[in-house]
Amino acid sequence: MAKRKTLKSDIARIEPDRITVHGLDLAQDILGKLNLGDMAFLEMTKRIPTPQESAVFNAIAVTLVEHGVSANAIVARMTYTGAPEAIQAAIAAGLLGMGGGMASGMVSEARKTGSMENAARMLQEAVPDPNANIDLDALANKIVQSHADSRVIPGIGHHFHVPTDPRTGRLFEIARANGFEGPYVKLIQLIAKRAQETYGQVLPVNAPGAIGALASELRLPWQIVRGISVVARAIGLVGHILEEMRDPMSREIQVRAQEEAGSRPRDA
Amino acid sequence: MAKRKTLKSDIARIEPDRITVHGLDLAQDILGKLNLGDMAFLEMTKRIPTPQESAVFNAIAVTLVEHGVSANAIVARMTYTGAPEAIQAAIAAGLLGMGGGMASGMVSEARKTGSMENAARMLQEAVPDPNANIDLDALANKIVQSHADSRVIPGIGHHFHVPTDPRTGRLFEIARANGFEGPYVKLIQLIAKRAQETYGQVLPVNAPGAIGALASELRLPWQIVRGISVVARAIGLVGHILEEMRDPMSREIQVRAQEEAGSRPRDA
Amino acid sequence: MAKRKTLKSDIARIEPDRITVHGLDLAQDILGKLNLGDMAFLEMTKRIPTPQESAVFNAIAVTLVEHGVSANAIVARMTYTGAPEAIQAAIAAGLLGMGGGMASGMVSEARKTGSMENAARMLQEAVPDPNANIDLDALANKIVQSHADSRVIPGIGHHFHVPTDPRTGRLFEIARANGFEGPYVKLIQLIAKRAQETYGQVLPVNAPGAIGALASELRLPWQIVRGISVVARAIGLVGHILEEMRDPMSREIQVRAQEEAGSRPRDA
Amino acid sequence: MAKRKTLKSDIARIEPDRITVHGLDLAQDILGKLNLGDMAFLEMTKRIPTPQESAVFNAIAVTLVEHGVSANAIVARMTYTGAPEAIQAAIAAGLLGMGGGMASGMVSEARKTGSMENAARMLQEAVPDPNANIDLDALANKIVQSHADSRVIPGIGHHFHVPTDPRTGRLFEIARANGFEGPYVKLIQLIAKRAQETYGQVLPVNAPGAIGALASELRLPWQIVRGISVVARAIGLVGHILEEMRDPMSREIQVRAQEEAGSRPRDA
Repeated sequence: MAKRKTLKSDIARIEPDRITVHGLDLAQDILGKLNLGDMAFLEMTKRIPTPQESAVFNAIAVTLVEHGVSANAIVARMTYTGAPEAIQAAIAAGLLGMGGGMASGMVSEARKTGSMENAARMLQEAVPDPNANIDLDALANKIVQSHADSRVIPGIGHHFHVPTDPRTGRLFEIARANGFEGPYVKLIQLIAKRAQETYGQVLPVNAPGAIGALASELRLPWQIVRGISVVARAIGLVGHILEEMRDPMSREIQVRAQEEAGSRPRDA
Repeated sequence: MAKRKTLKSDIARIEPDRITVHGLDLAQDILGKLNLGDMAFLEMTKRIPTPQESAVFNAIAVTLVEHGVSANAIVARMTYTGAPEAIQAAIAAGLLGMGGGMASGMVSEARKTGSMENAARMLQEAVPDPNANIDLDALANKIVQSHADSRVIPGIGHHFHVPTDPRTGRLFEIARANGFEGPYVKLIQLIAKRAQETYGQVLPVNAPGAIGALASELRLPWQIVRGISVVARAIGLVGHILEEMRDPMSREIQVRAQEEAGSRPRDA
Repeated sequence: MAKRKTLKSDIARIEPDRITVHGLDLAQDILGKLNLGDMAFLEMTKRIPTPQESAVFNAIAVTLVEHGVSANAIVARMTYTGAPEAIQAAIAAGLLGMGGGMASGMVSEARKTGSMENAARMLQEAVPDPNANIDLDALANKIVQSHADSRVIPGIGHHFHVPTDPRTGRLFEIARANGFEGPYVKLIQLIAKRAQETYGQVLPVNAPGAIGALASELRLPWQIVRGISVVARAIGLVGHILEEMRDPMSREIQVRAQEEAGSRPRDA
Repeated sequence: MAKRKTLKSDIARIEPDRITVHGLDLAQDILGKLNLGDMAFLEMTKRIPTPQESAVFNAIAVTLVEHGVSANAIVARMTYTGAPEAIQAAIAAGLLGMGGGMASGMVSEARKTGSMENAARMLQEAVPDPNANIDLDALANKIVQSHADSRVIPGIGHHFHVPTDPRTGRLFEIARANGFEGPYVKLIQLIAKRAQETYGQVLPVNAPGAIGALASELRLPWQIVRGISVVARAIGLVGHILEEMRDPMSREIQVRAQEEAGSRPRDA
């Protein structure tokens, strides 16, 4: 066949006696030195994080692992019940609902996943060069004005965690302690402040907003943010599948729904 | 790179002015002549079904399309809600629970999917050559005896459709009308009869059992049977996703489960 | 937990002695009477197709089944090789790449899937009421003008099937023979004609364009069109998985890519 | 509907001002204290790892992240190309091939994934109580004898990493440094030694074998082992999707395969 392009990958090289990842020797430079979050940072940025970057990146990823009996968890549990021989499929099924959401259809998981991605995007588009001298106050004001119609600003406000999201303060604290309280963190905080003043509502920075800001401080492009979320959630799904093995709930959920919805008569 | 093997596919050939599938011209020989079930038969057997085969194969596939608010349907609906921009992912997620089931973990979907596959396998292993002269009565007796411990015979009995499965009689009728009431149909009927006598329970041939027998009459290897089930179910899932678009239930199911399970406080 | 909404599904009702789908008795009204394409039509529209609708709908679906060694087929084959115990997962994996595509990122499968959906959308938005008296010529002209910048009109032109797509003529023939040569078919043909005149290129209606028009003639909302494509492709993937079982190619494809890309030394 | 069972989950509790995971306060006890590997350990064992457990568990997980241009990576890349708007689907698709493998069908990914799981299972079934006084030499001998027919022992030997797997020594070193060189590590090393003597071949402990042993030392049930692998690989797939965004290879791989396999004429 015609070869139009030579295939090329710079990620890993596997030789009989040596494996390298982004130029680092897996056995000597990585194993025992990087934790799983650091390894994810390496995959995403092609370099080992500094200790400060490691602290912030791991905090972001850890925040995203567990969400209780979310739709993802129920999907993974139901899929496990149907195909217990293939737990990779249960994890994969659980991940498939982590969409970005779109305009009118934004609901539940889509809203959560999309919010973080959208917050990072909004911040990075507003501040393309974080080292430039920017009037963040004016920028925050402009952003709040531009969302005045819907009053829905990515990363701002929460229907449940009121008045504040318990994760936000801690994430900002970790950012500060590690020298990452830069323009993106400041901007999202100013947006929240200005939104509260403008709309007269309690509108704290929510966890997706804080994560969007921290990812931006780490110079991670917004397009990657969903990836962090997906791998973190995969970890949480393993926990739910293990619980489903020991103490199942998926069959009960299904039977109740089936009977109530009328697709099966109720048990006498 | 070393080329160890030449790639080869005999399924389709796509040329600028002509597309062939298993040697048939798509535009001239297939479109307008084969229905979707016939096309599936062509994909699975490399030939066009006879009208009789078409009738039986389409009946099998149609039977497998719809199962009400099954776990698959709930999974597809939840995934759609999370990622409305990717309905292919919602369908895929719904299919992932169609496992074969295994020994101790056999539940719900796994049981259903596995039952059909296992019934076909049991019948085809018992009667490798359907044209041979076989004492089906003795064979049925032997099979029932070999399942005496668990009393669970693939394709026999149903916990819900008692005393008879409403699909079974009609499927056998269609088989008979099309000349497919051969040794596999007779064998599964004899197994059911003998199992009832032996165990003293009402044990009809269930739909998976009838389908396993009919697929065997069509000379479809048992390994393919799950494939028929998967594509049929994909069609049913589209119906459920469409209903979820108009009248959603997945979010309500999730919120209730989350609250009852204690991972979120109940609304006041 | 708080019950905010009663779950409700109108698709199927499963009782011990009777199963109904959209009010029809599965055993009596459906089995032996509907083929698999008709059943898909029932799932999508809640009613049995007329013989003419059946002919057109089945032709659409059959057209979409097989695409040779497409990315979907390779993905399904590789997944089967990795998890041969779970062919539902191989089919699901193959479906996941059937995205809708987006502006700048439109490539390969995304382009194909999106094209059909986008063609249906374009036609249905242009002609919301197919019974109204519309100047189709003016409409075609307007549509061609509005795409003058990119010169990419959904459903028009093909980089490979030149000068004509072998499927298009046959699909229109089937539509005509069954009384479905209405405003949508006429409009897409006029768009192609006008685009050729305006851009001075050979720009036939392609298969996705013909299917988008025929689906519109069947009054199927454009949002459903991707669903038809997904279930049809699932059928094709079964064929590829069966071929992979008999005569595998996925491992060879992977090893060559791995070696050429430099992530593994080439065999001596 | 009848409620047969109360739903219950002990993993997380999400309250407006507080989120707990396995009884730990997410903001105070987890964020900034646990890295992503530790969080996975918490999800799998319901407790925070000791520093020594953390070192060993993170090393296992990190080892499993990257495998170059594997089938999973190609599948994820192809799926991304087809549906760039849904990277969660690309990751999910890549995971679906991580099957457990089965007797005769054991190939490629299935072999790798299965090997680790099977090694852990073999070790844990041989030594159900790691604190008991066991004659490991006799046990190793017995295990080697019982595999004499196939000469394939889970976790032993490698077709590519000869004479030794570069990961194995380092993993054992990390185990030793952290006090985890217990009966499972010793047993797999004895099995390798005895297999070499018995079969007269170079048969080192491979990385899946070392990981199976270390997971057993950490008292992780063998059923969980595939879960670690799946989440680690998800991280690696993000790296491959990012590379595909910047420098794509999937389309080239597909076009070459399609042309060589004969489903499309070669370009002139």
